[in-house]
Amino acid sequence: MSVNGAHSLVHTLLKSGVDTCFANPGTSEMHFVAALDQIPGMRCVLGLQENVVTGMADGYFRMAGKPACTLLHCGPGLANGLGNLHNARRARSGIVNIVGDQATYHRPYDAQLTADTEGWARPVSAWVRTSTASADVGRDGAVAVQAARTAPGGIATLILPSDASWDEGGVVAEPLPVPPAQAPDPHAVRNAARILREKKNVLVLIGGPALRENGQALAYRITQATGAKLLGEMSNARVARGRGRPQLERVPYVADLAIKTLAPYEHLILVNAKAPVGFFAYPGKPSIHYNPAAQVHVLSRYEQDAEAALQALADELGAPQAAIPDPGPRPEPVRGAPSPEGLARTVAALMPDNAIISDESVSYGRGFYPETHTAPAHDWLQLTGGAIGDGMPVATGAAIGSGGQRRVISLQADGSAMYSLQSLWTQAREKLPVTTIIISNRKYQILIGEYAGVGANPGPTAMNMLDLGNPDLNWVKLAEGMGVEAARAESLDTLGDLLSQSVSRTGPFLIELVV
Amino acid sequence: MSVNGAHSLVHTLLKSGVDTCFANPGTSEMHFVAALDQIPGMRCVLGLQENVVTGMADGYFRMAGKPACTLLHCGPGLANGLGNLHNARRARSGIVNIVGDQATYHRPYDAQLTADTEGWARPVSAWVRTSTASADVGRDGAVAVQAARTAPGGIATLILPSDASWDEGGVVAEPLPVPPAQAPDPHAVRNAARILREKKNVLVLIGGPALRENGQALAYRITQATGAKLLGEMSNARVARGRGRPQLERVPYVADLAIKTLAPYEHLILVNAKAPVGFFAYPGKPSIHYNPAAQVHVLSRYEQDAEAALQALADELGAPQAAIPDPGPRPEPVRGAPSPEGLARTVAALMPDNAIISDESVSYGRGFYPETHTAPAHDWLQLTGGAIGDGMPVATGAAIGSGGQRRVISLQADGSAMYSLQSLWTQAREKLPVTTIIISNRKYQILIGEYAGVGANPGPTAMNMLDLGNPDLNWVKLAEGMGVEAARAESLDTLGDLLSQSVSRTGPFLIELVV
Repeated sequence: MSVNGAHSLVHTLLKSGVDTCFANPGTSEMHFVAALDQIPGMRCVLGLQENVVTGMADGYFRMAGKPACTLLHCGPGLANGLGNLHNARRARSGIVNIVGDQATYHRPYDAQLTADTEGWARPVSAWVRTSTASADVGRDGAVAVQAARTAPGGIATLILPSDASWDEGGVVAEPLPVPPAQAPDPHAVRNAARILREKKNVLVLIGGPALRENGQALAYRITQATGAKLLGEMSNARVARGRGRPQLERVPYVADLAIKTLAPYEHLILVNAKAPVGFFAYPGKPSIHYNPAAQVHVLSRYEQDAEAALQALADELGAPQAAIPDPGPRPEPVRGAPSPEGLARTVAALMPDNAIISDESVSYGRGFYPETHTAPAHDWLQLTGGAIGDGMPVATGAAIGSGGQRRVISLQADGSAMYSLQSLWTQAREKLPVTTIIISNRKYQILIGEYAGVGANPGPTAMNMLDLGNPDLNWVKLAEGMGVEAARAESLDTLGDLLSQSVSRTGPFLIELVV
Repeated sequence: MSVNGAHSLVHTLLKSGVDTCFANPGTSEMHFVAALDQIPGMRCVLGLQENVVTGMADGYFRMAGKPACTLLHCGPGLANGLGNLHNARRARSGIVNIVGDQATYHRPYDAQLTADTEGWARPVSAWVRTSTASADVGRDGAVAVQAARTAPGGIATLILPSDASWDEGGVVAEPLPVPPAQAPDPHAVRNAARILREKKNVLVLIGGPALRENGQALAYRITQATGAKLLGEMSNARVARGRGRPQLERVPYVADLAIKTLAPYEHLILVNAKAPVGFFAYPGKPSIHYNPAAQVHVLSRYEQDAEAALQALADELGAPQAAIPDPGPRPEPVRGAPSPEGLARTVAALMPDNAIISDESVSYGRGFYPETHTAPAHDWLQLTGGAIGDGMPVATGAAIGSGGQRRVISLQADGSAMYSLQSLWTQAREKLPVTTIIISNRKYQILIGEYAGVGANPGPTAMNMLDLGNPDLNWVKLAEGMGVEAARAESLDTLGDLLSQSVSRTGPFLIELVV
């Protein structure tokens, strides 16, 4: 078989360890689709809208720890997927983001789909390149994988004009070395140890890979030995939680609460984390949520090895091993009318071992975290960039990225679910082990809360933009319309029964919890 | 009441004639939402995903002839709506595109939602400005309306940081003058008249406002007087069609067909149109679809008054009045198994007077056009930019932009419908007179056709990305899940019955036509 640019790219991706492609192709990508068809080894997963595709790639990376590739159609196809690429950038997820485009020689004619593809890609990408000749495509593909995998992980956008794809003369490239995460800085380690030994009111704030099991255990050991406070960042790509892990709290979302929580600390030690600022600004409230008089110390930056930094710090301190305390008994499922705490306790009671939680429960879910410490070990995935509509795609990609062997529980608000509901169809097609719980309050509750901060009750015009009733969404029909079995619960009793049944299945299920 | 930036903007928009707001707000837009609540006069229409919002604004402009405003949430909210802003740009629709954003002083902290909002806006916008102080917001709003309304119409993106919205000191601005479309160039008129008088094999290609009733009548008169050929562009924002209008054909989409159609013409006269090029490039086929030896003459550019140019040309030629010929009898509804021609004839038979067709029927609908000349007078709206997913939002906005008094028939392929199906909910909430016909072939048929051009039959991996079955989408459930009544048709008999019933309603209805 002769090798065109598309063939060279598929071979190069496979050699570089990229074996999953989340796709929504179009005409200009047909030679790449043909190459995927002709060369065995790539699992191709279709999403019916591009923000589903990019969100799946994000969820995949969070669990698999290596990038998938996407396949998007021209500038507008990329544009449709930018929201979840924004979230993936904030999650520091590695993605090889392949965007087909007009042939190089066709571009000057400004045909209907022609757009500023590079311009749209750049704000979310760590690396952007347009391959302008078939001989370059393999090499550029290998560089893209390297860029996506370089710590902490980033979006490498490879734009593939159709002639670079279909022209003969493709050259398969060898994988490029992926540099390991950078070693910790010994000065930073010694400085952090000094602060922890000498100062009171110290906060150790951990993010990124420090939130995996080993990182948390080390951070717990350090803070137990020194009396410092340990917190996780507000929005995290993946947190190891449940039995056997510390009962780690996060920086709160609500500004007043965050400011109050952080006020006591005169020293912040950042481990692959940034000093906390507000999600939004509010009139008369500070942007910076930590004590403005506090000193900020960086133990490790995003591109550094968080676990090695924590290990070095524990060693420097001579911190003794610290057993993770038992969190107490697992709760029983709660019965009766839905409440945030009751839902959280019921999920904690019934989730299977080694579950994955994809959390886009927004305002209703703010209290879920403390109620689930006693659950079996699990991973918790959050909306990292605030671009609503990532919970269901991330759940879908996480199911694939964890090999389909772990149950994903997708805790999803109804308003945010509507941004990317097409995810359900991919869950059905791929028969993925995802239980979606739609928290159906039929309003943008978070905005009604925010509106109150403006100082008045919303009138009819405002409620017209904040209320999702009139008509009510029927999530059972929406799920069934995409091939996912579903049922409605109006009590936690029913929710618990349905959740128990769903986690013993192999495929997806959706529960609409009317609250 | 004191006037903050948000108040000044709402007052300014209303004074400038912008009285409809398509919205999907977030926290940073709450003061603007409050101002909309406090100041009467703006109709606010919620869309549950931003590409629905921007597509509605496009459809509104196409029918109302004046801009609506949007309300989007930060960079990622804008990003979600870029696909249909791309289409709106290609339609040359005027939109006042309002994007809330972080407070100016909060931006340096790079909070989760912070993004390059201006960078994402620029490729689709004729005008972009960030209002950085409340005193500027009214003035900037007036300039945005002017920019959106300046011929031919464009997207004016006004980025509104939350502090510019909530700070006192807003100043309401007077409307700015909107310059009329530029007058035709007398030299261009004389040149076109000379070509039409002296040359054979002349094509008059019309686009934009030349496709309205008066423009077409003038163009028909000119070509009847001179023996020239008259064609419309391939993808048009709005075409006046049906009884009383010329039986105007368009430049074909399929490359070979377009090249064959255009080959005879040695002179092209462009009226607010561009010389035809391929939608995509294909190996071994030219990008330019007209005869490369042809001379291209511009009668009028996009920013010029097409009708005035055609009037001047008709006068210059002394072209006599030309009666529009009767297109022959209206067809009867077709019975039996679905076919493209049968569906088109049935729609032509049953559409009410003065209907609006929103056409995103993609491959199945390529033959609809010639079968509908005999229908009553109607307007036909197309996908202008190739960014799939505009048909249902445009239908929704067109229903609002035409005052809710004209039935919209949304001819929609199933694959493209999935990109923005949330439109149905807005149709239900606003009780809009829209009949959606989902042409459910359960595949990306256009891509299967394109794949054949690559030279092989799609194998299992390719079909995994081109087939929408497994599981089948159930459009009746999807519609009902969003509050729109729906039914399935497997024959044209049933389709015809359902279509007849639906057009006598006041609200929306969806028909899933399984083909």
